[in-house]
Amino acid sequence: MQSVPSQAIRPLSLNASLSSSRLPFFSFSLPIFHKFKINPSIYNKSQKFPLFLTLRCCSSGSVTAKPSSELRRNRDVQEHDERVVALRRLFSKPGIGIDAYIIPSQDAHQSEFIAECYMRRAYISGFTGSAGTAVVTKDKSALWTDGRYFLQAEKQLSSSWILMRAGSLGVPTTSEWLNDVLSPGGRFLFSHDAAKELKEAISKKNLELVYLYDLNLVDEIWKESRPKPPNNPIRVHDMKYAGLDVASKLSSLRAELVGTGASAIVISMLDEVAWLLNLRGSDVPHSPVMYAYLIVEVDGAKLFVDNSKVTKEVMDHLKNASVELRPYHSILSEIKRLAAQGAQLWLDTSSVNAAIVGTYKSALDKYRSNHGSKGKIKNKRYDESNGLSEGPSGVYMRSPISLAKALKNPAELEGMQNCHLRDAAALAQFWCWLEEEIHNNVELKEVDVADKLLEFRAKKEGFLDTSFDTISGSGANGAIIHYRAERGSCSVVDPNKLFLLDSGAQYIDGTTDITRTVHFGEPTAREKECFTRVLKGHIALDQAVFPENTPGFVLDAFARASLWKIGLDYRHGTGHGVGAALNVHEGPQSISYRYGNTTPLQKGMIVSNEPGYYEDHAFGIRIENLLHVQEINTPNRYGGIEYLGFEKLTFFPIQAKLIDISLISNDEIEWLNNYHSQVWEKVSPLVEGSARQWLWNNTRVIHKQ
Amino acid sequence: MQSVPSQAIRPLSLNASLSSSRLPFFSFSLPIFHKFKINPSIYNKSQKFPLFLTLRCCSSGSVTAKPSSELRRNRDVQEHDERVVALRRLFSKPGIGIDAYIIPSQDAHQSEFIAECYMRRAYISGFTGSAGTAVVTKDKSALWTDGRYFLQAEKQLSSSWILMRAGSLGVPTTSEWLNDVLSPGGRFLFSHDAAKELKEAISKKNLELVYLYDLNLVDEIWKESRPKPPNNPIRVHDMKYAGLDVASKLSSLRAELVGTGASAIVISMLDEVAWLLNLRGSDVPHSPVMYAYLIVEVDGAKLFVDNSKVTKEVMDHLKNASVELRPYHSILSEIKRLAAQGAQLWLDTSSVNAAIVGTYKSALDKYRSNHGSKGKIKNKRYDESNGLSEGPSGVYMRSPISLAKALKNPAELEGMQNCHLRDAAALAQFWCWLEEEIHNNVELKEVDVADKLLEFRAKKEGFLDTSFDTISGSGANGAIIHYRAERGSCSVVDPNKLFLLDSGAQYIDGTTDITRTVHFGEPTAREKECFTRVLKGHIALDQAVFPENTPGFVLDAFARASLWKIGLDYRHGTGHGVGAALNVHEGPQSISYRYGNTTPLQKGMIVSNEPGYYEDHAFGIRIENLLHVQEINTPNRYGGIEYLGFEKLTFFPIQAKLIDISLISNDEIEWLNNYHSQVWEKVSPLVEGSARQWLWNNTRVIHKQ
Repeated sequence: MQSVPSQAIRPLSLNASLSSSRLPFFSFSLPIFHKFKINPSIYNKSQKFPLFLTLRCCSSGSVTAKPSSELRRNRDVQEHDERVVALRRLFSKPGIGIDAYIIPSQDAHQSEFIAECYMRRAYISGFTGSAGTAVVTKDKSALWTDGRYFLQAEKQLSSSWILMRAGSLGVPTTSEWLNDVLSPGGRFLFSHDAAKELKEAISKKNLELVYLYDLNLVDEIWKESRPKPPNNPIRVHDMKYAGLDVASKLSSLRAELVGTGASAIVISMLDEVAWLLNLRGSDVPHSPVMYAYLIVEVDGAKLFVDNSKVTKEVMDHLKNASVELRPYHSILSEIKRLAAQGAQLWLDTSSVNAAIVGTYKSALDKYRSNHGSKGKIKNKRYDESNGLSEGPSGVYMRSPISLAKALKNPAELEGMQNCHLRDAAALAQFWCWLEEEIHNNVELKEVDVADKLLEFRAKKEGFLDTSFDTISGSGANGAIIHYRAERGSCSVVDPNKLFLLDSGAQYIDGTTDITRTVHFGEPTAREKECFTRVLKGHIALDQAVFPENTPGFVLDAFARASLWKIGLDYRHGTGHGVGAALNVHEGPQSISYRYGNTTPLQKGMIVSNEPGYYEDHAFGIRIENLLHVQEINTPNRYGGIEYLGFEKLTFFPIQAKLIDISLISNDEIEWLNNYHSQVWEKVSPLVEGSARQWLWNNTRVIHKQ
Repeated sequence: MQSVPSQAIRPLSLNASLSSSRLPFFSFSLPIFHKFKINPSIYNKSQKFPLFLTLRCCSSGSVTAKPSSELRRNRDVQEHDERVVALRRLFSKPGIGIDAYIIPSQDAHQSEFIAECYMRRAYISGFTGSAGTAVVTKDKSALWTDGRYFLQAEKQLSSSWILMRAGSLGVPTTSEWLNDVLSPGGRFLFSHDAAKELKEAISKKNLELVYLYDLNLVDEIWKESRPKPPNNPIRVHDMKYAGLDVASKLSSLRAELVGTGASAIVISMLDEVAWLLNLRGSDVPHSPVMYAYLIVEVDGAKLFVDNSKVTKEVMDHLKNASVELRPYHSILSEIKRLAAQGAQLWLDTSSVNAAIVGTYKSALDKYRSNHGSKGKIKNKRYDESNGLSEGPSGVYMRSPISLAKALKNPAELEGMQNCHLRDAAALAQFWCWLEEEIHNNVELKEVDVADKLLEFRAKKEGFLDTSFDTISGSGANGAIIHYRAERGSCSVVDPNKLFLLDSGAQYIDGTTDITRTVHFGEPTAREKECFTRVLKGHIALDQAVFPENTPGFVLDAFARASLWKIGLDYRHGTGHGVGAALNVHEGPQSISYRYGNTTPLQKGMIVSNEPGYYEDHAFGIRIENLLHVQEINTPNRYGGIEYLGFEKLTFFPIQAKLIDISLISNDEIEWLNNYHSQVWEKVSPLVEGSARQWLWNNTRVIHKQ
């Protein structure tokens, strides 16, 4: 699946620069402490997922299932307007007294896909796109979203909302707008407390940002109609796929704790919790994770999760690894308890929510005042083990789990390889079917095609879910980078236009993500030239060899060079990390024209290779494989270091018909022929009949003239 | 000329990161206020010249002209040891009372090449390399230098010096070492005050860094034997080469002053002063500049320069542009005067020395206390023009002149083009001569070759100087990136080895910098493979097309990709900016694997394209042309922006014999044949006889097999 330019969602980014310490991204976490009504904060999510995560067209569709009739739409609009009125009524209530309220998109775990009960922004505004921030003042309501959602937001928002087209000329950021519409000296209250930058930005106009942990105004008005939190059973991720047992993972993590002088780490990223404990869940669509927090101490570990999700098997599994269970909502009291002992907590502030950070800091302040001005640690255990002479103040560093998770072990790689072949078999069946239907002049909607693909995939062993919403775009729809075909409104697949299909699946042993672009009839010279240049970029990146310690962005230009030669480009990154039977987008690596992410590509990492080209109102092209980073046995090793390159995970034909042979070099043709020969070798044993014939036809050697 | 990895000289860099705000470089400015004995500060030179400037093997040779006899060496060593003793004697003098003294390399203007009277580090230590920092404590003396100079430093330093091989494992930085050898609570005094980072680094150990403006201990002991400051007449740089008159340049600059709310700017970079005033000098080798400061106010300008350098013509030229003259040493009193008026000065702290910044800040403090606590500006002029409501506090931003100077106007480009053709004619004569001599078995030393090249160049119209010390390296010497052949010690040019020649010249109309690598006999397969891959990188960069706003580092990997494929690389950047009849190295752009410099490549900029490969103890390869950035007329303009590429300035044959045809593509052969055809067309009219024949022979079409 493709990536997206970050400027699209920068409503709050004020001094966005290109250094890693001041990233151009921004996102919010939504309150999730519905029991305690504690409101976590805005976080710079992108420090972990600089290009992909916050921008995915997410599963919010489940909230939006609206009938197309005008009547129903009007009723919806009215309902949302009433919610805003109810919200405003709370502003002036005793003990609140605020001037504005911001409602962002995310949950408290910075998840890409979120559960329905946390979709507060959709609830209040009616806008269901994956990226957006609603701001309600006493007399205005405004919604910021990016270019992908301008049309959708126009449709879904009532006329009482101002649509802020983020990134467009003259459109203010959220903080600029707040500075403008609120009179200086006003008092804000954000249900999700704001990032430092927002705080600073608005403080210039003498506006105050108030951190509030005990009240969520949206929840106040949502009440009974609010969906229940998800409650699905957790399962154990088999060792044959995980490759490393929980005890070993915890032991490595504890070594890092000791190394940094921390006595415990708080983990809130759902995929980090799942990876570390070899557990999987199904609380959100597309990502096999469960809502939970994990605290790992030097001599223990506690999982904060709803008991009802924990099966006997999971219970035993956790006991084996000496992980204790705690109620999901008791996370803050545990943080307080640890702080009261003078614990030195490792908090990755790019993912841990502000409620936790804030609770820890204020509990530490209390601890300090109880233990003298210098706050010397009285608790001998921490004092001795960490050599701390000053009091605890927290360790605020990146979570070490992100990198550990990204470096796949042999079992994880094997699972990824295997599921990619099964996925390719499903795809062969699907494309064979699709070409046949088109050939027979069957009219197919984009959404039908996506459904049929799911049908083929669902029959494959170990299939669990799609890994994101399928992007099925015919003609001009292919040029909409995050297009999502909707039943009722989507197009018919046009046999005379390019068709772009970006899809992926979650299997028990791995995660896939693949894009192919095809033409069912005769492509134009323009389409062929653009396709060929995208393919040349794809091959250049696939074939790249680079010294260790090279960040992904260094390679990004390889994928664009051929397009640049004729003045073309694409407005998204070229590669993102992919989890092993986990999130389809993960950090810390990326391959992008944005150079904020300096994480080097390392052996065992998985990245997508997905250059594209999008001609507005005409067609979209993207060619995506997943690759894993491996050492290359180069004849030299200048500098005494390793040289790295890529091994393909995805084995599926690339449509040769779309190649303009005059533009492609002998080496590139050789690459394609080699690739297709491998595709046939690896995938043909898994398909039969017409699908096998289709695979044969589409993996034949091509020649230069 | 080539660039060098920055880690080589990081003696003081503590928290070096890759963001632009915390650069991995560090250098010092040397005291130049010899009259006032004011000592300017350490500056992060590299913010302006991130890769090249501080590492050049500079002209310090003039100080070092030592006879090779052991006797003379011993006498030198003794002399330098006595200087250290004399220096230490000053430590405990009344009013000084210091524990350590640091002596860096630079002058107060952050110049690449400096005048002899400012070579204090060479004076005190005997070490004459271009990069190095001496630190003298009460009982120890240590010198930090980088890998290029380890051997030279071993030879030149007496046994009483500790040689700190910067960048080697376990070697402390200057501040680490100081923290280690000095007892906490000690008091430092640096004749050149230290950078903030040094201050912070040593403050952890409770060591104090003292800014001292009125005493330079080295000068105290140097006294009579110290060379006089250079005193050469300044000349006017003709409008036909400058392209833009001083009034226009000042007017643009003043518009920027107004835009930032500054009332004046202080310019201390010598090439910026020279460029802005269309003046040239000859105070330092290789760079046609003069020692001077310039203050440009909204309604006036003052040049601080030794009167004796100012001819009648220059005087008239300056009068025409309403630039007043002031004595060089009166800069600080003018700064004080301006501060006392509440002037808002624009100071680029990456180039302006600390004496100026410090003087301004303390004078401002005084101004503020005289004008009430808020320091409201009483001076109506500044108040109104700048809309300042608070008091002046200085504008600390990059100098706008660096970029203005980098964007060459048509006259400057024409001068560059013309002088490159004359330079190529001299090179054709030289290479024709050299091949003939080698053919006749004449034994030539590397230094003889450099001298002969100078002889040919010196005959060309408008020749002024070399633009840096020629790098003439046969065989293994070619692998020493900053090799400088020294008479008496250098090698004979071996007809059976690769020969690398990196040289350049200053002409009245422009500046050149070119590297060619040749073999006089039969190159090995290894040499050919490496040469071919360097050439492929050179061609890839030369042919690159890229969208506007692309920083140079994005293109760097194009030049390395072919070497990386077989596990090779080179440890220097690929391109640096070049001045028009000015410094051979200039910012703000660069093309490097270091990504701290995010300056986009822009139309009119000049960059070198100089990939290389260096096999230790065997050979060195580098192929360098200068290019200028220009718009490319691409058939598309995706994003509505311009796409840029390069036009060559250098036209000189690349030795075809060294190409392994099997490794090179048809497109690359076509590039070479086109290039050689242009070389013949442009340069052949300027040469005659055997040189013309040589040029003909070396520009013939080559074929694949």
